Amino acid sequence: MLHAVVPAGGSGTRLWPLSRAQRPKFLLPLTGTDSSLLQSTVERVRLLSDPDRVYVVTGAAHAVDVARQLPDVPGDNILVEPSPRDSAAAIGLAAAVIAERDPSAIMGSFAADHLVLDGEAFAKTVRKAMELASTGLLMTIGINPSGPDTGFGYLRLGAPVGPGYQLEAFVEKPDQVSAVEYVSAGNYLWNAGMFVWRVDVFLDQLARHRPALHDAVRTLAAAWDSTGREALFAQLWPTLDRISIDYAVMEPAAAAGKVGVVPGDFDWHDVGDYDTLGQVLKAADKTGNVVVRGTGETLLTESKRNVVVPAAGRLVAAHGVDDLIIVDTPDALLVCPRDRAQEVKALVEELKQANRTDLV
Amino acid sequence: MLHAVVPAGGSGTRLWPLSRAQRPKFLLPLTGTDSSLLQSTVERVRLLSDPDRVYVVTGAAHAVDVARQLPDVPGDNILVEPSPRDSAAAIGLAAAVIAERDPSAIMGSFAADHLVLDGEAFAKTVRKAMELASTGLLMTIGINPSGPDTGFGYLRLGAPVGPGYQLEAFVEKPDQVSAVEYVSAGNYLWNAGMFVWRVDVFLDQLARHRPALHDAVRTLAAAWDSTGREALFAQLWPTLDRISIDYAVMEPAAAAGKVGVVPGDFDWHDVGDYDTLGQVLKAADKTGNVVVRGTGETLLTESKRNVVVPAAGRLVAAHGVDDLIIVDTPDALLVCPRDRAQEVKALVEELKQANRTDLV
Repeated sequence: MLHAVVPAGGSGTRLWPLSRAQRPKFLLPLTGTDSSLLQSTVERVRLLSDPDRVYVVTGAAHAVDVARQLPDVPGDNILVEPSPRDSAAAIGLAAAVIAERDPSAIMGSFAADHLVLDGEAFAKTVRKAMELASTGLLMTIGINPSGPDTGFGYLRLGAPVGPGYQLEAFVEKPDQVSAVEYVSAGNYLWNAGMFVWRVDVFLDQLARHRPALHDAVRTLAAAWDSTGREALFAQLWPTLDRISIDYAVMEPAAAAGKVGVVPGDFDWHDVGDYDTLGQVLKAADKTGNVVVRGTGETLLTESKRNVVVPAAGRLVAAHGVDDLIIVDTPDALLVCPRDRAQEVKALVEELKQANRTDLV
Repeated sequence: MLHAVVPAGGSGTRLWPLSRAQRPKFLLPLTGTDSSLLQSTVERVRLLSDPDRVYVVTGAAHAVDVARQLPDVPGDNILVEPSPRDSAAAIGLAAAVIAERDPSAIMGSFAADHLVLDGEAFAKTVRKAMELASTGLLMTIGINPSGPDTGFGYLRLGAPVGPGYQLEAFVEKPDQVSAVEYVSAGNYLWNAGMFVWRVDVFLDQLARHRPALHDAVRTLAAAWDSTGREALFAQLWPTLDRISIDYAVMEPAAAAGKVGVVPGDFDWHDVGDYDTLGQVLKAADKTGNVVVRGTGETLLTESKRNVVVPAAGRLVAAHGVDDLIIVDTPDALLVCPRDRAQEVKALVEELKQANRTDLV
């Protein structure tokens, strides 16, 4: 049985106006169903766990929304960070809390804002990672690259071990030339930020490479069910290093030969923008229009390959337009070509510079 | 002094979703200011009249909106038709009501849904028409064609008379070949449905060509200030011919040599669709984007020549799009290329066929 941790953070600026500071990507229903990415992630990890062993780590700003979207996750399993301290603190805290309950538990960590449509295939891969994790390796799950994407870090595979491989190295996000090399080389996978390990092994590595962080999360976890928790949080949390789990633990552990990797034999999507969303959710008919489930209706005539999000309860009518993004929300509307989906970020920047905090 | 009549009817289907059955074109602020077309028309005719001599004829469905948009028009001057009976009945009724008050009055009739930006030039032309109308001609005002438009009827000029011409004939909306001929011939003007006449002369012609209609509007006008008006309306109005003023009076009168025409030396626009609206209102800057004054804001980046109507109080953000129509209303949104502006009518047809009476 897995202890499944879902870190729920990040914003998703390129998904404006659906995503906002107060309504980040993981809370949005970008799954082709009414489920949010967070809900879909939790449903998926439940295939490997039981409800009492599912944890979410999130910020204070989103605690209420997370609690309401996930009524079946026990309140004690929703770990609310007083302020964001990056992934080493978030995942370290979860590992320490789990270790208090079960010192030899196997824990997995899966980001709340990724989309996986085939839950069974996902579970099968995670089980392979659990098998290797039980031998004492810190496991990652790598994604078979569908192309030379420069938006991801890469994992370089070493020697085979059981159902996976030693991880030879974490590789930074490459330039285009390097990305093409990696994909044609065949021994590189995308780093999707999915981890599986025994909490005792992980905490040992954390203690070795980031002792202060280790001690702090251990102290917090030990006081988890006590009245002193709040005061300890106020005292310790602001002192923690802001550092990613990759830098803090995984890279030094990989250098020491302690990290393994299992290739993910499942579809996996980092739905970062509306064009990608359209590719992932696919059209229901031969017009190629993708209508993301929302509160409104659509009437699309002589229009093709558009991505339409009717999220304001209104009719969205389009006539004679192709390859557009149309996102309708109660206080803002976006119209933009699909091939410029990345540039939505710039619009949000303009709004920030104009102090339109009501809209970002 | 002119008695100015403003028939306020018509729908404006190609201006959906701004225009609806319950919110026709003439009630909409398509003037580049906060004024509706109706308000702008009434402001314009006031240059020639005084407030007590301005009349509006409209349907029961729009009486309340007309009354509220025009608080300065006397209640008795807003003639409310119980049901639509086309323009001969509407204009005939107005003429008869004016004749009751002043039997030799000069009356002008100007549609509520046309846009004229230069009111002084308009007034100057109307004064020329009044001069000829006082001699006993039924006058029309023709528009110098800006091109071979097949969407208008044409006026063929005859011999010069005073500051205008005899009207030789009304010509039906032509095909493209004929339209090109008319424009190059130089003696054709667009029929813009603007009329100026002495009410006694007009009513005499109405009596000659449509005696039943004449008698009915005379009877109604005579009872206008009496308690019997409502009963008479209920009895007579449904029996009236549904016929346009052109067919009922102007064409037969022209055949008898009793119609004159003055060329309109003013800009004139039948703003029938959003592309035309964009051409008429013109862009405020070199991006060529036209933002029609609405309740919402816009953020248009790397976007050119779009016509944007932010009428839902929301932000309309567009990035990297050109030559689009974006119309944002509280219950429906339209996105369509400007060169397909005419086809908006087809969208409305689809909604009607789907029984979406809430949206049309």
